[in-house]
Amino acid sequence: MTNTTTPDKLDLELLGQQMHVLIGELYPICRSITGDGVRETLRRLQHFLPLTIHEVPTGTPVFDWTVPREWNIRDAYVKNSRGERVIDFQKSNLHVLNYSIPIHKKMSLEELKPHLFTLPDHPDWIPYRTSYYKENWGFCLSDKQFLKLSEDEYEVSIEASLKDGDLTYGEMLVPGRTTDEILISCHVCHPSLANDNLSGVVVACFLARELSQLPRRFSYRFLFIPGTIGAITWLSINEPRVSQIKHGLVLAGVGDAGPLSYKRSRRGDTEIDRAAVYVLRQLGPDARVLDFSPYGYDERQYCSPGFNLAVGRLSRTPHGTFPEYHTSADNLSFVHPHSLGESFSACLSIFSVLERNGTYLNTNPKCEPQLSARGLYRAVGGSTDGGASELAMLWVLNLSDGGHTLLDIAERAQISFDSVHRAAIVLEEHGLLRECFKQSPAVTSEAPV
Amino acid sequence: MTNTTTPDKLDLELLGQQMHVLIGELYPICRSITGDGVRETLRRLQHFLPLTIHEVPTGTPVFDWTVPREWNIRDAYVKNSRGERVIDFQKSNLHVLNYSIPIHKKMSLEELKPHLFTLPDHPDWIPYRTSYYKENWGFCLSDKQFLKLSEDEYEVSIEASLKDGDLTYGEMLVPGRTTDEILISCHVCHPSLANDNLSGVVVACFLARELSQLPRRFSYRFLFIPGTIGAITWLSINEPRVSQIKHGLVLAGVGDAGPLSYKRSRRGDTEIDRAAVYVLRQLGPDARVLDFSPYGYDERQYCSPGFNLAVGRLSRTPHGTFPEYHTSADNLSFVHPHSLGESFSACLSIFSVLERNGTYLNTNPKCEPQLSARGLYRAVGGSTDGGASELAMLWVLNLSDGGHTLLDIAERAQISFDSVHRAAIVLEEHGLLRECFKQSPAVTSEAPV
Amino acid sequence: MTNTTTPDKLDLELLGQQMHVLIGELYPICRSITGDGVRETLRRLQHFLPLTIHEVPTGTPVFDWTVPREWNIRDAYVKNSRGERVIDFQKSNLHVLNYSIPIHKKMSLEELKPHLFTLPDHPDWIPYRTSYYKENWGFCLSDKQFLKLSEDEYEVSIEASLKDGDLTYGEMLVPGRTTDEILISCHVCHPSLANDNLSGVVVACFLARELSQLPRRFSYRFLFIPGTIGAITWLSINEPRVSQIKHGLVLAGVGDAGPLSYKRSRRGDTEIDRAAVYVLRQLGPDARVLDFSPYGYDERQYCSPGFNLAVGRLSRTPHGTFPEYHTSADNLSFVHPHSLGESFSACLSIFSVLERNGTYLNTNPKCEPQLSARGLYRAVGGSTDGGASELAMLWVLNLSDGGHTLLDIAERAQISFDSVHRAAIVLEEHGLLRECFKQSPAVTSEAPV
Repeated sequence: MTNTTTPDKLDLELLGQQMHVLIGELYPICRSITGDGVRETLRRLQHFLPLTIHEVPTGTPVFDWTVPREWNIRDAYVKNSRGERVIDFQKSNLHVLNYSIPIHKKMSLEELKPHLFTLPDHPDWIPYRTSYYKENWGFCLSDKQFLKLSEDEYEVSIEASLKDGDLTYGEMLVPGRTTDEILISCHVCHPSLANDNLSGVVVACFLARELSQLPRRFSYRFLFIPGTIGAITWLSINEPRVSQIKHGLVLAGVGDAGPLSYKRSRRGDTEIDRAAVYVLRQLGPDARVLDFSPYGYDERQYCSPGFNLAVGRLSRTPHGTFPEYHTSADNLSFVHPHSLGESFSACLSIFSVLERNGTYLNTNPKCEPQLSARGLYRAVGGSTDGGASELAMLWVLNLSDGGHTLLDIAERAQISFDSVHRAAIVLEEHGLLRECFKQSPAVTSEAPV
Repeated sequence: MTNTTTPDKLDLELLGQQMHVLIGELYPICRSITGDGVRETLRRLQHFLPLTIHEVPTGTPVFDWTVPREWNIRDAYVKNSRGERVIDFQKSNLHVLNYSIPIHKKMSLEELKPHLFTLPDHPDWIPYRTSYYKENWGFCLSDKQFLKLSEDEYEVSIEASLKDGDLTYGEMLVPGRTTDEILISCHVCHPSLANDNLSGVVVACFLARELSQLPRRFSYRFLFIPGTIGAITWLSINEPRVSQIKHGLVLAGVGDAGPLSYKRSRRGDTEIDRAAVYVLRQLGPDARVLDFSPYGYDERQYCSPGFNLAVGRLSRTPHGTFPEYHTSADNLSFVHPHSLGESFSACLSIFSVLERNGTYLNTNPKCEPQLSARGLYRAVGGSTDGGASELAMLWVLNLSDGGHTLLDIAERAQISFDSVHRAAIVLEEHGLLRECFKQSPAVTSEAPV
Repeated sequence: MTNTTTPDKLDLELLGQQMHVLIGELYPICRSITGDGVRETLRRLQHFLPLTIHEVPTGTPVFDWTVPREWNIRDAYVKNSRGERVIDFQKSNLHVLNYSIPIHKKMSLEELKPHLFTLPDHPDWIPYRTSYYKENWGFCLSDKQFLKLSEDEYEVSIEASLKDGDLTYGEMLVPGRTTDEILISCHVCHPSLANDNLSGVVVACFLARELSQLPRRFSYRFLFIPGTIGAITWLSINEPRVSQIKHGLVLAGVGDAGPLSYKRSRRGDTEIDRAAVYVLRQLGPDARVLDFSPYGYDERQYCSPGFNLAVGRLSRTPHGTFPEYHTSADNLSFVHPHSLGESFSACLSIFSVLERNGTYLNTNPKCEPQLSARGLYRAVGGSTDGGASELAMLWVLNLSDGGHTLLDIAERAQISFDSVHRAAIVLEEHGLLRECFKQSPAVTSEAPV
């Protein structure tokens, strides 16, 4: 990855289809912020990746929070008086209010109604609802289904358990030449929702596999964690190592048909913000850049004021701005192989800029060096076209005073980052440039995860 | 004023009418930069306010200036040979060049003419002219009146005195919880001109009365002073206490029908500049924000480089940009109760922002605190609308790192200041926020004025 | 030059014609980066100016470069088998690839062709080509001429010498009251090309003559040097004195009919950048301001990161953006007396701003001083028009806190620099302003060149 942008060589359509297949495999599992759904999901990812699965016991204090009891569910239904399952968890795990407490009781429709959630604006869709931190039970169903419910005595059953157990998350470090880390974080707690966030999970998974095979300056840390409580738990346990995170990306909703969007970190103009904005602008005018806000996914935790990490978020259509968000319509047909491939490729491009975004010193800063004596300049002078690569070399030489990264130079020169990087490599090979290494220790042994 | 924006509760129309009545009462008095006109004006304000009246003797050196001799006038006229008063001070005090030296003499029209001032573009209006620092005498009259003057022998009489005496100004401190001051300054030296500046005088008067009844962090210092020489005199005498002035507002021309305008302080982006701009933008697209210039009212002195105070100016139509400026047409019908009420209300709103514009520290800066455990978060998760107040809380928590005021947060979040302030109060009540107090000593006893 | 902008007084049209005549005199000389052409050119300039001619021996190391061997040429031609000169150096010195090594040989057209350069897009024009640092020989000719060449045996002769000698450049210092320098640099190495750069040479020449007769704070250093290697040589030899250069201007292509353009220094917003932008904006909307790029003329060397001088470039149509660039069409009719006069005048205006752009301290910073007591303010107050000069005085007083130059004040006040400067002079004369002198030593004796 040091000298070339790898994405071009990859068959992104094929990778997109493979990612879509993996989403299909994970889709039926009933996940929540704790429980066997997450465990089963992570175990399947282990077929692809040497992922470490961590378990954190219920009751562990994590900053202002406490790891909650573990929730598992076996079955749930509402039966009418004829014994028919009018709402059936077996048909969709979205039917159950996630984290519902167990219940088995007969009741009238009136008694049942306060526990039913529908979407009148989208009468065919089942909403996704949760009640993690307030004990409650409930069912989600389509408004059409709801309107068919008549006065009756209903048997309501949720065979769930909410007991001391563990919070489960997956982690993998792809070590690089230095211990400086790029964090890639995705949430893995949603049940049958494809874009939010199996898309993020599979893109992270494929990135980890791809990056393992590329030369790299950075170490890449992948987190597959329950949203909010998982990020809080990880940060709490790993606080001493947080300072190694130099850049980070939350992946969420990266499979829909909308254009890519990048949400800036709280700091707003960090190196990953600039690299991501650069890469997205190359992708065309549709790609959007959003300012930070404290509403969203786990960037909320990474960018809380006590951490304030350089972590942005890559998404496609932002959450909450498409009607399928948190409904049964966020299904396998809502995510597209092409989009998955493009999101994957954009991530690699961003990382590739970060990998190559060195700061150099012109070893010959007084006047220009004689490029022609080194075969770096056109032989016959006087013509109009200086040649793009010569111009890139002149820019790199002119701005390599230790105060400009290659991305700074590319932006000021309005020349592609690749051209600027190629010029830097050539100049370095001729001894005209010397990289200013940042104080980041090299990896001495396989870093523990 | 700490928790709510008071203006909404007030009957602004009624207050506007009351202010207009007070303008009517003060209008006939012949004021100047010294003399009984100012004294009489301040005495009448004492019916409303516990105003202190200060007298500074003629000859007192005040920076580069000296307090001038006191000017008083009893009568003035120009009589024709038939003994008719063709120009009569008793009809309008604008007829006399303000600060005219005494004269009693007969003369031809030719001899008189260099001492007559008219406005040919507005033939019915009497101009307002002064000659404070160069001994002179003269009359101002409408151009129509002027054109009727025929060759004749005129008796010219100005029964004025220009003698050692005092410069008079009024001052009032409304003490707050701290000795940090907000300065409200208006000029009180113009004769029968309603907008410039009886409007400023009555708005300041009503503000002093209103603020006395509101809880307040700041102490409010009101100055009713002659323009230029008054501000210079006050600053010269009170130089040691100038550092207590944290914010300030000059009020001038706040009664006409034009939209509100705020002129920034010399520093341009101080807290009062930002608060005033915020409040004016809420008032709609007509309100204007003007950059500082060293031409205008007493902000010239407060913003001189040796003081450079955070003092802006609130006006409606800026001086010099309306034809009625400094003419007899700036009369009682040129000022409107509604405008006076709105100007008054805008001042209160600006002060209310300043009063509440705290800087806070998130007591739990690492990751988000668990709002739901404190009943601050919606019970059922997953739906699209996070709720405006939750969003405001998240913003306040995220940016309360000691480096952002609530106004900073409101502007970055594009949420109303009131919402942000409410969120801060709720979070502070739950121990999630702690205000960073600035080093401003509390008032130990009634501050001397 | 201290109190007035001189350009207005000059007859620019006449000066433009005189400059055009001088270009005509220098035009036929065959210049290169070394050799008798440059020597002869500088000797002719000595008729106008007390120019010092420096010679730097071949082989002298100058930073990353070495002073090359000296090139001189006596004659060159290509003769056909009938003995006719089908390409003839005597007709145009552009016909020879500049720095061609000597050759005398018979050859076929096929053998000759790789050594011929034409411009098929402009079939009547001869291109200008060089080969300074790679030994080569060649001829430049019009494409029409080229197409007429038939199969034949050609006699090729270049009577040139490439031997140890010297690099020649001219220098002149016009000493001012201080040793702070303004550098004016032009390249003098091109053969018969009028705009690039005899225009720069003659404008520099006339500037040196004009500035010698004006009072001046700055010392003005003029360099007439071969492009690139000349600037590198001068910087290498004069490195210790480079810190005296406070501002600088490269003059190149200042005679064509296009509007003036200013290319910013690498630092982008230095005092000369701001002065030049100010002057060009006064000239109207056509004048252009270009950002720095490391491609161009000798600003490349002055703005290399090891020097990073405040040197911009004045041109008209930027090089490389007009078809006549580096062709025989850049001839005497391509440069215009009017353009030369305007370029000359713009330089003087820029220097005039720099000369007068002082930083002052208000000696009376607390409140305004009493201007009327010093006769600096209108006698009768109250009228609308404060007068432009009064406003300029108020601005200068208000911003003269040691942190604003007069140009800063002019830009913030949106008042002309001349008005602001006049106001400062008047205020200084009245003791209300005191100039903050920068630490630049006065000239003790005629500075050595």
